Amino acid sequence: MHAVLARLAPEARVVDLAHDCPAGNVEAAAHLLRGSWSLFPDGTIHVTVVDPGVGTSRAVLAARAHGHAFIAPDNGTLGGLVEGGEVRQVVHRDVMAREVAPTFHGRDVMAPVAARLALGMPLAHVGPHAVPIRLPTGLSRDPGGITGRVMFADSFGNLVTNLSREVVGELGRPADEVRVRLGDAFLDGLVRTFADVAPGRALAYFGSGGHLELAVNNGRAIDLLGLAPGDPVRVERSPA
Amino acid sequence: MHAVLARLAPEARVVDLAHDCPAGNVEAAAHLLRGSWSLFPDGTIHVTVVDPGVGTSRAVLAARAHGHAFIAPDNGTLGGLVEGGEVRQVVHRDVMAREVAPTFHGRDVMAPVAARLALGMPLAHVGPHAVPIRLPTGLSRDPGGITGRVMFADSFGNLVTNLSREVVGELGRPADEVRVRLGDAFLDGLVRTFADVAPGRALAYFGSGGHLELAVNNGRAIDLLGLAPGDPVRVERSPA
Amino acid sequence: MHAVLARLAPEARVVDLAHDCPAGNVEAAAHLLRGSWSLFPDGTIHVTVVDPGVGTSRAVLAARAHGHAFIAPDNGTLGGLVEGGEVRQVVHRDVMAREVAPTFHGRDVMAPVAARLALGMPLAHVGPHAVPIRLPTGLSRDPGGITGRVMFADSFGNLVTNLSREVVGELGRPADEVRVRLGDAFLDGLVRTFADVAPGRALAYFGSGGHLELAVNNGRAIDLLGLAPGDPVRVERSPA
Repeated sequence: MHAVLARLAPEARVVDLAHDCPAGNVEAAAHLLRGSWSLFPDGTIHVTVVDPGVGTSRAVLAARAHGHAFIAPDNGTLGGLVEGGEVRQVVHRDVMAREVAPTFHGRDVMAPVAARLALGMPLAHVGPHAVPIRLPTGLSRDPGGITGRVMFADSFGNLVTNLSREVVGELGRPADEVRVRLGDAFLDGLVRTFADVAPGRALAYFGSGGHLELAVNNGRAIDLLGLAPGDPVRVERSPA
Repeated sequence: MHAVLARLAPEARVVDLAHDCPAGNVEAAAHLLRGSWSLFPDGTIHVTVVDPGVGTSRAVLAARAHGHAFIAPDNGTLGGLVEGGEVRQVVHRDVMAREVAPTFHGRDVMAPVAARLALGMPLAHVGPHAVPIRLPTGLSRDPGGITGRVMFADSFGNLVTNLSREVVGELGRPADEVRVRLGDAFLDGLVRTFADVAPGRALAYFGSGGHLELAVNNGRAIDLLGLAPGDPVRVERSPA
Repeated sequence: MHAVLARLAPEARVVDLAHDCPAGNVEAAAHLLRGSWSLFPDGTIHVTVVDPGVGTSRAVLAARAHGHAFIAPDNGTLGGLVEGGEVRQVVHRDVMAREVAPTFHGRDVMAPVAARLALGMPLAHVGPHAVPIRLPTGLSRDPGGITGRVMFADSFGNLVTNLSREVVGELGRPADEVRVRLGDAFLDGLVRTFADVAPGRALAYFGSGGHLELAVNNGRAIDLLGLAPGDPVRVERSPA
């Protein structure tokens, strides 16, 4: 992909945002994108190639929204992010590489489209309007609390959940009115940062992307808490 | 290496192609280079530092071929790729760093040469003409088929073999006239992409670099197929 | 961090030096910084975000020394490197991001300061003068030798110690007057590079950063030598 960008759009500045998104985990890709796009300058073109359906009939989307452009497979990565803007399906062969390998649309479809958008090609050239797939929120609410789940582990072994600060806030002020349940036990509380608990202790906090994360101070939560991506994480109102 | 390039050739654009090439695996490095160099713009200088013999008497080569430049240890990385061009051995001390650490020729030999070529130094300044070492193809043909082997696993756990599309094509059309043998069993067939088989099933396909690869849909083949780099992979004519 | 730099200082060239520094290992970060900063051009701004105390009251420092600038948490990363220059604590809120996440000062404090220094902001704008914390050397000397320890394993599995060439040189000429003790045994000797011993054999050598490293030719020392970061490594005078 770097080669294609360097060849087609040699003046474009290219940033590798993350190569450690778990393979095939669309929810993790969507989370990383949502947590980072607005930090980039206006006009940035964001290409997200987590693509377990590569080579199937799933579409590739290109969109303009919020003053930025976004390119990704239509697997939920863009759903909920770009609907206010212009969203199109990439279908025209002349915006792709001459030959398209069925296992690497990042190189042969998404990078060529990104390069051409960087050079000023109108978005309409890629193909017709489209409506992106939306992932289910994966949350369930009941009178006692809200159940979400682990989306992925980051490179430090911290477990990132799909429980946003806003969702947890439905139950009360996180710091003293909400507690985090893991199975039959509760974490000590919601804290600000790792060092708010003793080394080796588990903690929950809102990560820099705005979602509840579970970690172990000076340790790897994914190895120590017995939780894996997909496992439920529940937040409840603290007893008064 | 980035530091050396930034200091000596501050105007040069530097791209990290891959840091996940298996340590010391020259065949994997050669494969990655062959699958990517032609995607870069003319004039690109490709530096490949997979170098298990660092500090020994193995030579460092610098070459111009196909409108690109190539720098690598003479361990087979460049053999078969640059012979049509100008190939030289890097011997002149004034194109290297002042001190050359015996364990990091990438930083102290290859990066300085790359920077100087980027600034316009003639290739002849590095040293005398040379003939690169060529790796054996690692293929054996018999009337029933062709046996190659696993070269390396990529970051998704897919197993990349040394069986190119051209070599497999000697047996017939891959999709319906060739089958892939693993030990006593055969894979279901040669398919286009991961999703052509059910989740958890093994598949063979031609990767985006043009070689036969073995994978498991939604899984890591290297953990699931009982194969490691070096193990044989055989393609045979399908029974009529 | 890339996003912040691209937004605030779009003309700045950004280099990712290393993402494989062991999480939370300040000594490893300090070693990587000391082994690389002087290779970069004068005026480079080095940002080192190994930060196990993120969100606590530990300070963030910004310094100018040796014609370069350095930004890091005050956890020992900069101690012993910048004292000859101007060292300041980052306290002024207007040089940081508008909101500072308690778990990602790299993004919200260090990157904004780096961008502003790149744009010409005087160092004094970040806050008052400060004296950096210094890590203990972690060396103990006795008449028979010097005991240090493993600081971290690099991406090849080589074990990097805190025994510098200068420190080992106190005992004699490394190549023939010093030997390396691991528990009750001795390594064969201090050699120049991996291939100076047979495949599978352990070796000690001075790495490209200038410290004694332990490795296994064609193997991963951390998996094969039974040593972990923190374990002692001793150098002794060879018997005459």
